[in-house]
Amino acid sequence: MPMTQHTVTSFEEDLQSLARSIADMGGRAEQIVEESIRALLNSDIVLAHQVIEADKKVDALHRQIEEAAILIIARRQPMAQDLRETIAAIRIANDLERIGDLGKNIAKRAVAIQRETFSNKVRVGVEHISELALRQVKKVLDAYAVRDVAKAQEVCARDQEIDDVYTSLFRELLTYMMEDPRNITMCTHLLFCAKNIERIGDHATNIAETVFYLITGEQWDGPRQSSTRIDE
Amino acid sequence: MPMTQHTVTSFEEDLQSLARSIADMGGRAEQIVEESIRALLNSDIVLAHQVIEADKKVDALHRQIEEAAILIIARRQPMAQDLRETIAAIRIANDLERIGDLGKNIAKRAVAIQRETFSNKVRVGVEHISELALRQVKKVLDAYAVRDVAKAQEVCARDQEIDDVYTSLFRELLTYMMEDPRNITMCTHLLFCAKNIERIGDHATNIAETVFYLITGEQWDGPRQSSTRIDE
Repeated sequence: MPMTQHTVTSFEEDLQSLARSIADMGGRAEQIVEESIRALLNSDIVLAHQVIEADKKVDALHRQIEEAAILIIARRQPMAQDLRETIAAIRIANDLERIGDLGKNIAKRAVAIQRETFSNKVRVGVEHISELALRQVKKVLDAYAVRDVAKAQEVCARDQEIDDVYTSLFRELLTYMMEDPRNITMCTHLLFCAKNIERIGDHATNIAETVFYLITGEQWDGPRQSSTRIDE
Repeated sequence: MPMTQHTVTSFEEDLQSLARSIADMGGRAEQIVEESIRALLNSDIVLAHQVIEADKKVDALHRQIEEAAILIIARRQPMAQDLRETIAAIRIANDLERIGDLGKNIAKRAVAIQRETFSNKVRVGVEHISELALRQVKKVLDAYAVRDVAKAQEVCARDQEIDDVYTSLFRELLTYMMEDPRNITMCTHLLFCAKNIERIGDHATNIAETVFYLITGEQWDGPRQSSTRIDE
């Protein structure tokens, strides 16, 4: 009996350690996004390079979590809730890795357009979509940490908001380009940044769907109009 | 003994079935990319809608492969080469799903810009980068099918070529926008299409790295200048 007891405890420890790694990775991905946007808006090149460097740790954590999860599946052959925990860790780590990547790309564009200035209206638009996306990332990490299904559903429900802001920012940047060809290079970079931020929101929604599955054991089947949108 | 024999055979069957599903998924993802570009260049809206529809099957295959692989790990507790096979299937299915998504997005943009015409030079540029990316996808699927490590390495080595063509196409589209503001909307969509195609090449390279790991048991450590590029 002590052996069994030990094994059970150790399995739980494995799962807890996996969840802690996800929390660590999530915190780092969130910071990368937040700092990349700050680097972009303030033309802070030093910070941009720090962000690019910090993403490497997120990539390393991704591989570590994937390996740990596979080891758990092979060793413990988890069932039901435990198996969901492990699969969820693999999926969430995958989305967090992509969020980190998208933040890194924003940081690279911050370096590329460091000498450009942008209008206040564009700045406000970028700030707005960034706040929405960051709020989604924070909220979904909370939902995962405390297993809050209602919070996960909120994240799923609010993705449309980011898409709408993206569409309006897209149009604004296009208008700005048409007004003056000298804006074209900078606006093109900002278009890609806006797209990256919108996609960070998509990945937050993916994670929310995984959290929903983790808690309920069912696939999320709520509103998400991804099939009609031009993006990933 | 017959029992053991049976078990061994059945395990091999599991792995073979997984590899067949990957081949099926790969063929479909490749077709989506090829047809999405055809739809874009020929303003073929019917084809574009078919592509958008066809991507759903790729998504379904992704989930199926992921589930089958996890079941194999839990049931068989594979070691060494067998474990690599299973992990490789999960990773490759993930990249193929994203290739399908990127193709779907090109198809959506084909619908969005159906009434626009583009210059011959831009058309040639899009055709060129598309051919390179498709060749990479085909080659890496071959490398996986016949476990050809040299072919996988070739794919890794040639990613830079796509990046260079992308950079030149990016500049061309920018120039085209600056020449005439009426080109801006169409060129912006084409910029995103070019970016999607370039990223399809990136995912082909990811798969090549996985094939390298699958065959050799080691992580690919060759040239790939992803840390200096603005993309994912």
